[in-house]
This record gives sequence, structure tokens and C-alpha cells, in this order.
Amino acid sequence: MAEKMKALWKTSAKAGAELKDAPIPTLKPREVLVKIKASSICGTDVHIYEWDNWAKSRIKPPMIFGHEFAGEIVEIGSLVTKRKVGDHVSGETHIADYNCFQCRIGNAHICENLKILGVDTNGSYSEYIALPENNAIPNDNSLPHEVATAQEPLGNAVHTVFSQPVAGNKVSIFGCGPIGLCAIMLCKAAGATEIYAVDANDYRLNMAKKLGATLTINAKTEDPAKRINKETGRGVDVFLEMSGNPNALKSGFESLRSGGEAAILGVFPNNVDLDINNYIVFKSATVRGINGRKLFDTWYKVDSFQKSGAVDLRKIITHKFKLEGYEKAFELMKTGNCGKIVLIP
Amino acid sequence: MAEKMKALWKTSAKAGAELKDAPIPTLKPREVLVKIKASSICGTDVHIYEWDNWAKSRIKPPMIFGHEFAGEIVEIGSLVTKRKVGDHVSGETHIADYNCFQCRIGNAHICENLKILGVDTNGSYSEYIALPENNAIPNDNSLPHEVATAQEPLGNAVHTVFSQPVAGNKVSIFGCGPIGLCAIMLCKAAGATEIYAVDANDYRLNMAKKLGATLTINAKTEDPAKRINKETGRGVDVFLEMSGNPNALKSGFESLRSGGEAAILGVFPNNVDLDINNYIVFKSATVRGINGRKLFDTWYKVDSFQKSGAVDLRKIITHKFKLEGYEKAFELMKTGNCGKIVLIP
Amino acid sequence: MAEKMKALWKTSAKAGAELKDAPIPTLKPREVLVKIKASSICGTDVHIYEWDNWAKSRIKPPMIFGHEFAGEIVEIGSLVTKRKVGDHVSGETHIADYNCFQCRIGNAHICENLKILGVDTNGSYSEYIALPENNAIPNDNSLPHEVATAQEPLGNAVHTVFSQPVAGNKVSIFGCGPIGLCAIMLCKAAGATEIYAVDANDYRLNMAKKLGATLTINAKTEDPAKRINKETGRGVDVFLEMSGNPNALKSGFESLRSGGEAAILGVFPNNVDLDINNYIVFKSATVRGINGRKLFDTWYKVDSFQKSGAVDLRKIITHKFKLEGYEKAFELMKTGNCGKIVLIP
Amino acid sequence: MAEKMKALWKTSAKAGAELKDAPIPTLKPREVLVKIKASSICGTDVHIYEWDNWAKSRIKPPMIFGHEFAGEIVEIGSLVTKRKVGDHVSGETHIADYNCFQCRIGNAHICENLKILGVDTNGSYSEYIALPENNAIPNDNSLPHEVATAQEPLGNAVHTVFSQPVAGNKVSIFGCGPIGLCAIMLCKAAGATEIYAVDANDYRLNMAKKLGATLTINAKTEDPAKRINKETGRGVDVFLEMSGNPNALKSGFESLRSGGEAAILGVFPNNVDLDINNYIVFKSATVRGINGRKLFDTWYKVDSFQKSGAVDLRKIITHKFKLEGYEKAFELMKTGNCGKIVLIP
Repeated sequence: MAEKMKALWKTSAKAGAELKDAPIPTLKPREVLVKIKASSICGTDVHIYEWDNWAKSRIKPPMIFGHEFAGEIVEIGSLVTKRKVGDHVSGETHIADYNCFQCRIGNAHICENLKILGVDTNGSYSEYIALPENNAIPNDNSLPHEVATAQEPLGNAVHTVFSQPVAGNKVSIFGCGPIGLCAIMLCKAAGATEIYAVDANDYRLNMAKKLGATLTINAKTEDPAKRINKETGRGVDVFLEMSGNPNALKSGFESLRSGGEAAILGVFPNNVDLDINNYIVFKSATVRGINGRKLFDTWYKVDSFQKSGAVDLRKIITHKFKLEGYEKAFELMKTGNCGKIVLIP
Repeated sequence: MAEKMKALWKTSAKAGAELKDAPIPTLKPREVLVKIKASSICGTDVHIYEWDNWAKSRIKPPMIFGHEFAGEIVEIGSLVTKRKVGDHVSGETHIADYNCFQCRIGNAHICENLKILGVDTNGSYSEYIALPENNAIPNDNSLPHEVATAQEPLGNAVHTVFSQPVAGNKVSIFGCGPIGLCAIMLCKAAGATEIYAVDANDYRLNMAKKLGATLTINAKTEDPAKRINKETGRGVDVFLEMSGNPNALKSGFESLRSGGEAAILGVFPNNVDLDINNYIVFKSATVRGINGRKLFDTWYKVDSFQKSGAVDLRKIITHKFKLEGYEKAFELMKTGNCGKIVLIP
Repeated sequence: MAEKMKALWKTSAKAGAELKDAPIPTLKPREVLVKIKASSICGTDVHIYEWDNWAKSRIKPPMIFGHEFAGEIVEIGSLVTKRKVGDHVSGETHIADYNCFQCRIGNAHICENLKILGVDTNGSYSEYIALPENNAIPNDNSLPHEVATAQEPLGNAVHTVFSQPVAGNKVSIFGCGPIGLCAIMLCKAAGATEIYAVDANDYRLNMAKKLGATLTINAKTEDPAKRINKETGRGVDVFLEMSGNPNALKSGFESLRSGGEAAILGVFPNNVDLDINNYIVFKSATVRGINGRKLFDTWYKVDSFQKSGAVDLRKIITHKFKLEGYEKAFELMKTGNCGKIVLIP
Repeated sequence: MAEKMKALWKTSAKAGAELKDAPIPTLKPREVLVKIKASSICGTDVHIYEWDNWAKSRIKPPMIFGHEFAGEIVEIGSLVTKRKVGDHVSGETHIADYNCFQCRIGNAHICENLKILGVDTNGSYSEYIALPENNAIPNDNSLPHEVATAQEPLGNAVHTVFSQPVAGNKVSIFGCGPIGLCAIMLCKAAGATEIYAVDANDYRLNMAKKLGATLTINAKTEDPAKRINKETGRGVDVFLEMSGNPNALKSGFESLRSGGEAAILGVFPNNVDLDINNYIVFKSATVRGINGRKLFDTWYKVDSFQKSGAVDLRKIITHKFKLEGYEKAFELMKTGNCGKIVLIP
């Protein structure tokens, strides 16, 4: 095996990234080495690329970033028992210790010693990655790697959507990036009777419409809360915040019916000034913060929904670039005129 | 208004029924009088018609039976405030007192002083029926009465199916009568990834297949538990018992995975000899008894699923008879070669 | 019966109140007339008395205020069937229509046409009150009226506490007014293993300690979040916000463990600037807004906990005044150096 | 370290047991060796000792039995990272693979490749035991081993009791062996307002009374269902089956209120002939099969309830024998005139 590999580095504390060689990782006893066949771009990667406040506070260059990926196991550590060379796998991003209180009560996604791939450790914008065998989720060989890489964000959507009852209910989804688009497919598959999709980008709203949104609302040109309240009479039963936009959070609560349930996956640039009385207390709302994926219940659902045909990730993957074309890819991400973008190392 | 009406009576304690005049009911202050446009046949009605053990123990002739119906309000009692003359309505069968412990904690469907329409009181196989305004569920005028009558059993299916999580899960449904068929439509709409439908009648299994069952199993020719366990590897996540057949109950538990959930709507002719250890305890199963509909949450869901197009009751209504043709209708019911049968008074 | 009664009026849009005669209410057909034997002071009454911003926006003088009470039924309306003259009753404050969507799905406490006694209608600081029979909750004759009046806030505590699992868990309670004190008794009765009580008033913290708090923290002299995090290592499992203080809300979230659950009953003077990312999203917290009492499940629990001896409301009732002494009572309320204060008409 | 140890063997397929030497176990890389200081007797051990039908079908002599124990780690395997020599530990009996579907969705207690200590593998009636580090649950050094051994059955009780809401509810507990007695302590600690304890042995009923049962019923002399229904009016809210007696199961359902919840931990000698209609379906009951302990949420609760003082296992430990006195211990177990019996190797 070659000793060097191509990788996209965050080399220093400023905007941008740099493509340059890295040593192929060596394995710890319970790790596997995956030859990466596809690695897709997440909003988090854009924060790192652009070097915003969050990135400054969290990322320690130099490091390889990227965390959504799929590939094939080419080597296993000495104590690996669950995976083998040749397995096709996707990566679970949250590396838990399986020993702390949270892990032992079933909350490995909020492990007390959690490390996040491509954030706290070297990531997947490269030719190879080493990760614990537990984090290598097996895929059918029939699933193309370019599709399988998007199972990680699909998992976020599964975790968010199914934290509330959607069957027979009206749902609003604020934010139509790839996770929001997955949420639309899932809500449709799971019997939501109305799906209101909100974004400020027409490209994404068009995708939302095609994937099953019963109504799309461009927040630039129309007040989403007013429209949803007009359509529903009393607001939606379930509100999913997937944008990280403070106005979306407010608008979502304003169009949630009393007794309704909200799930927040979006991460906000700053504190949000919130009308706790009317949005939560008087409304008797239930609000859930969503983080990562349930390990590993979520991954079984990711698999089920694809096998049943209810979710087809191909529909949200709009662009593919060679890893070398990363600058164009990140420029495109920033416009929002795309679904999921996949990089091929 | 005419003082007499046509009605189907259980006149005496033996099999059969008798069509003869009855006085049009007079109203209590909070009751409405509904002109019945359609009244469908439930399995319970067959028990009454055939005068089986259950009927002998519960029914007190002479009485008018039948309880699934739809029609139009033609008169209201002096204290009625929620409904008005001209409203199209379906009938909720469970007459609760809204004053006992169960009603006051939200369980009106198991009211401590419950009366069931057409079982404890005169029923709907007639031209008119009087019922409490709370039990007259408003329908859109666009919904034909012949369809609306089947919303009551659809409600049973809604109550049963959504007592467990079905999205992304594998579900078995034992019993493909009209409620089982509704359950198939609901499971499909709500994202069940596999739906195993079991019955002993090919007519109904064919309907099950058309409505969305991913696999149908004729229990006469194949062991359902063996087949389901073979297909799934470990059994289904959710088992719905809708047949009242002891073998179905056993077979359903044998093909439920450990940690799975079962809902029992079926009513059994006798006690059932059950392997509690392996079916429930070691399996860590959750088992829910299902009775009627949640008042009135279920009815809102009944409405939602129809309006979204996820459920079309027309697909389960296979036959229509004039009330006078009741003998043919009940004969047909006994063969099982039908979906829902509607009687027109 | 005398035609006039003594009552405490909010006569005009300014601070204070006025004691003057009012006509004894006449009954609607489904109402009962209660001779009030005791009526206790709620924080809401202080807002009305002091005429703060909330009061200005909601209260329409002239009106009689007060809403916590107990007494005896002395007359019933013509259609009343559930209550009778002589019944001892407490008052449920939320007057629901039992006909809207929320009421019909079991959420009468957030009825779409809700009226609140003593806020939207004439209240209980008087000799008599008329209220719907549903809102007159029967008490054992052995329960003194002066105690029974405090069942309404106990109900708020029951609703708040039991929206999360407390058995075997560590709980923080911010705000040790009468509802917070009830919550302490309930948490102790229900097996919370640690109860951290936070307030800024030593009188109330002393009561908290006596009622079962395992640790009391004066937020004036110590940072509650730091202390709770130090004591627990990772924060509490359950956080109950019962103060309406923005700093308490923040502090409560800062000392909630990841994956923990929060219930907010407190009402805040303004919007709150909240770190949604760290308080809810990354923390995977579940947050529930709490409003009123579940009708009527909560009242059954209120009764159970008193009958079992787990809760003794006498322990939180610290002062009693004649209605005429209302000025002293409200002054005392404002100091916070009291538990529940009862007015006797 | 000595190469031989004392152990209680099931040497052949017949009643009884034999005390004889065994080799001290050698460790696999992720196992720890525990020097056993106390090992208590479970009902399962009595089945093995007496060689009943269940034992015949499951146990493969020769083997060392016993599975409740506490002791000190004296050696660790080469890959052990979570435990160290000198740790005081209790034993979790269910050895899961942490790799199957059930384990990966959070159900390690029903692992698809589960092995049970002392049933499928050599057990704890000996001087030393080897077990996976995950199964060695750390104890405070201040907790005596003779008490700590009973945490395993306390865990069964925690799992059973907290699968239903008990605060403010009436609970029946059928079976007052050690697990039933633990359940009484837990229900009392968690705010059950009435605890009806049923058994056929006065020794155990006396213990039940002392530990907090509000009423004890001897099923030999009184019909438990009749009595509970008389006391409650409508039956209990929660029914816990902890006896494995078919009559208890029936009686428990007969005294469960409509809409109530049942948990079954008992294991029955044969199938049970059950009135599914009236016990489950019409009653709208929820029934949960309980198996082992939730790994490891239950153990944290076991710890919390002891540290808070709510549960004191000393109160259920009635007898202590040297391992050599096993015959007397098993004879005593069969009489039922005991709580938990501890063997000291």
C-alpha cells in the first residue's frame, strides 16, 4: 500500500483549504482502514472552509476535514472482530467511548468523551481514513458509494423526524438543505398529511416540491408563519427546525399549534431572543434538541427506508466533483443552488 | 315526518333477523335525529345475526341492531349546541357519560358507564337513529354516505395501528377483514417497510395485496409464523391481531421479534392457552389491548388520512344491498368473500 | 339569599384593588353557585394587583379577581347533573368549551376558546362565585376549605413534575413559591434522589429545606449552575423552571445534563436571550411548556397524593387574612416571606 | 494464586448439587477475575437444584451454578480498560455480544446471542468467577459485599416497576419473594399511593408489610382480586406479576382497572389459559414482558435508590450460610420462610 495519500487540509487558521499529501493513517487495534470512494459536503464543512466563529472556536489546524463518506475496508486492526476487509461501509461520525454514563444508558450520540470525525480528528476528504470498527456501518455492495455517503445526513433527518409523531399530522420543515430534503422524503413516507417546506432559495424549494412538500414557502417573499397559520387554521402539529436561522426558529414556533411538538437540529450563529411564554409555556409545546444519530437504531432505519424504496438518496445528490475541484464545490455550496455535493478522491 | 320507520330487528333469542316497522325515535334534549343513508355490516353484527355465545350473553331482544352508519341530521334536541339540522355525520358507537373517572382522565372509549350503539341500545339498521350530539361526527358534504359509514371501522384500525411505531418497521397483520384492510392502507401510508398480511380467505388476501401488503400468507396452506420468521430473520417489529382467531394470536407472537410490540383488537371465542414465558416475558414484548376509538383524536386522524388521499375507503367497500336484502348480505359476510358490505335503508 | 356580596374589585386600570359590594352571580343552566370559604393568592393576582405590563394587556376592569378557592355549592343551575347543593368543591380555573379540536383530543387545558377564572371572568375574591359544574371539583368534607383552596397550585406542580420521570433522578427546582414548594413535596414523594431548590429568598429556601429539598441554593449569594454542576458532576436529570426569572432559566439549562428534560411553568416578563445551541440542541434536551392542569387527570393525582399523606398542603400555607385585610396580604406576598396566603371572605 | 477453588456443581441430570473443587478460571483478554465474597440464591437456582422441567431443558451439567454475587477484582485480562484490580463489583448476569441488532438498538438485555451466567456458563457459587469487564458493575467500597450481591434482583425490580408510571397510582404486586419485596420498597419510594402485596406465605407477607405494603393479602385464605377490587372500587392502575403463578396472573388481571398497565416478570411452569378478551382487549390494558435489567440504565437506578436511602437491601436479606451449608439454604428457600439468602464461599 502506498505510504502517502491525497488529502484536503485545513492548514491554517484562515478561510480556504489546501490539497496536499498526508501519510496514510496507521491503525489502532480496534480500527479499520477505509479506502474512501466518495465523501460529501456538509454545512459544517462550509463553516470550516470559511473559517467562521464556530470554526475558530473548535477546529485546530492543521487537520484534514470532511466527515460524510463511504468506501471499502482495506485493512483491519489486530482486535477487530465485527468488520472485515472488503466490507463496503459508511461512516458514523460520532466516536463514542462506550464506557461513560451517557453511553451506558443508551446515549452514545452524546457520549461524555465524544470525538467528531473531521472536527476533532482527521476527516474524510482524503483517500483513506482510520476509524473504530463500531463506526464503520456496513452497506450492501449494491449501494453505490456515491449514494452511501449521504446516509449520514439522512440519519440526522431520521433522528429528527421520528422524535415526533408525524403520521396523520401536519409538519413544517424550515431549511431545505440536504437534511431538510431528506426530512421531506421521510415525512412523506411516514404519512404526514401536509408538509410545509420553508427556505429562502428557490433551487432548494423546487427540490422540496419534487420530493413531496405539499407547499413550499420562500421566506424572502412571504411570511412563513402567516402562510402556514392561514393554511392550517391553527398551526402545524410538528415543527422541524433544520436551518439554524433565528427567524426560522421564531417563525416555526409562531406557526406551531398549541400542544404541538418541535425538534431543533439547526445550529444558530448566536443566542436567540425568544418569546418563551408564547412559544413554549402557554403553547404547551414540547421541544427536542437533536444531535447526531441514535447509535445505532437510526442506521437501521436509514437502511429500512432505502430498501423499501421510500427514500432514494439519488434524488438529493445534485453534483459530483473530483476532490481536486473542491474550490468550485465549496463555491457552489455557498450559493445554495445545489442539493448534496459529492467529492471523489 | 312519518311516525313509523323500517328497521331490522333482532326480535328473539335465536339466529336470524326480522325486517319490520319501528317508531321513529324521539329525542332527548342533547340528542340528534339522523336520517340514515348507509349502514355497513360489522363482524359484531354477524355474531348477533347468528346468535353465538357472545350474542346470547350480551344482547337483549327485541332490539334494532347495526352500528356503523352515516346520514344527515334532520332534527336536534332542545339543548343541542354543537350540531345542526342538515349536518352530514358518521356515528361514533361508544356512548360515554363524560362524567366518570375514565372519561375524566381521557379514556371515554372505556367509560365506566359505556353503552354501545346497536348492542346496548337500538342501532342503525333502520331509517332513523337518535344519538347524543357528541357521537354525531361531522363529515364534509363531499364525502358520500356510503363511504362515510366505513369510517367507524377505519377508526378501529387507526387506533390499533398508531398505538405502536410503524414507520421504518416490519408489521404483521393477522385478519384481513375490513379493519385489517384499513390497517394495511394505514401501515403503507405511515411508512411500514414490510407488511405481512395473513388470512385464510383468498378473496381477502387478494384485496390485501392490492392495498399494499408486501406479502400475503394463507394460513390454511402455509404456517404464517414460519414464513414471516424466514422472511424477516428475527420476526416483525409490530404485530397487529385483527382476527380473533387463537391460532393467529399464537402465530403472531411466534413471529414477533424480541422487544417487539403487539396490539390486539380481535375478540376471541374462548380463553386462549398462551405461552406467556416465550411470547411475552422472555421476548420483552409490549402488548396493548385495543378497544374502540380514542374520543375524538382517532376521528381527526380518520379525516386526515382520507383528505391526504393516503386512505381511500372506496377500495374496501365491495358490496351494497338494500336493507331488505339483508339475508343475502349476511350470507355473503359469512363466506368472507367480501370487503365491507353496505346496507341502504 | 342576600342579593349583594362582598368582593375585591380591580376597579380601574392602575395599581391596587377595592373592596366593595357586587351582585351575587346568577346561574346559567350548567353552572353551580359556590359559597366561597377560602381563596388563596397566586402570583398572577399580584400582577393584577400591581398592574404590571402583563395585567395591562390582559385584564379589563372593572372585574373581581382571584381564582384559587374552595367552598360549598349552595345552588345549581337547571341542567346541572354532576354536582349537588352541599358539595364541597375546589375550583378548576380553566373554563373550556369541550367542543373544540384541543378539547376533543384531550387538551382541554389549552382549549381554543379558553377562559380563565379571575382573569377573563369574575373571580373568587368574593363571597360567591358561579362556575360551570365541570369546573367544580368535589372535595371530601374532611378536607378544610382553607387547605382545599391550595389544590389548584398543587395541580400545577403535579402537571409540571410528572411530565418528566423523577424516580431515581436528580431534580432542580428554580423558584420556591407555593408551586415550587409543592413540587419539592411531590419530587420527594415520587423518589427523586436529589432535589436542588433555588430561590433568592431565605424564608422560602428554609421552607424548601423543611419540605424535602436535599440542597437549597440562594441565587443571590451563589451561582446555582456552578453549585449544581459541582454537586452532580454532570448536571441534573430533570430541571423544573417555576420562577419566571430569565437568569433562572439560563442557570437551569446550564446545570441540566445532556439528554436531560426540562419543564417550564414560569412566565417571563420579556423575551429571553437563549443559547439554543448549548442549552437545547447539543445537549439533546427535551423541553416542555406547562400550562394549567390536565383536565382532569391532574386533579385525581392531587387527591391521591394528599390521601396517601405524601403531600400535606398545610405545610405550605403560612398566613391567613380576612378578605378585608387584602392590602396587608398583598404587601406580604411582595416580600416573598411567606408560603401560600389564604383570604377568608 | 491457588489453582483450585471450592465450587457448588450441578454434576448430573438430577436433583441436588455437589460441592467440589474446580480450576480457577483463566481469563480471556476482556474478562476480569472476581474473588467472590457473597453469592445469593435466586429462584432460578432452586429450579436448577430441584431439576425441574425448565432446568432439564436448559441446563447442561456438569456446571457450576449461581449468578447473583459481589466481590473484588483480583486479576484483569490483557485488553481490559474499564476495570482494575481491587475494584469492588457486582455481577450483571446477562452476557451480551454488543454487536447484534438488539444490542445495537439498545436492547443488550435481549441480545441475540445472549448467555446467562450460571445458566449457560459457569456461575458464582464458587470462590472465583471470570466475566467480561462490561458485566462487572463497580460498587462503592462502603457497600458490603453481602448486600451488594442482592443488587442484581433489585435491578429486576427496578426494571419491572419503572416500566409503568407508579407515582400517585395504586399498584398490586403478586409474589413477595426478594424481587417482589424490592418492588414494594421501590413503589413506596416512588410515590405509589396504595401497594397491595399478594403471596401465599405469611413470613413474606409480614416482610411485605414492614417494607411498605399498604395491604397484604394471603392468596390461600382470601381471593386477591375480590379484595383489591373491593378496596379500590375499580382495580389498580398498575399490576406487577412477580410470582410465576398462573392464578396470580389471572387474579392480577381481574383486579387491574380498565386502561391499566401490567408488567410480567414471573416465569410460568406451563402455558396459561387466559381470558384475552376481558383481561387485555376490552380492558385496553398494556402488558409488558420484563427480562433482566436494562444495560446499564437499570444499574444506575439501583445505585441511586440505595444512595438516597430509599431502598435498603439489608431489609430483605434474612439469612446467611457458608457455601458448605448449601443444603440447608436450599431447604429454607423451598419453605419460602425467608427473604434473600446469601452464601459465603
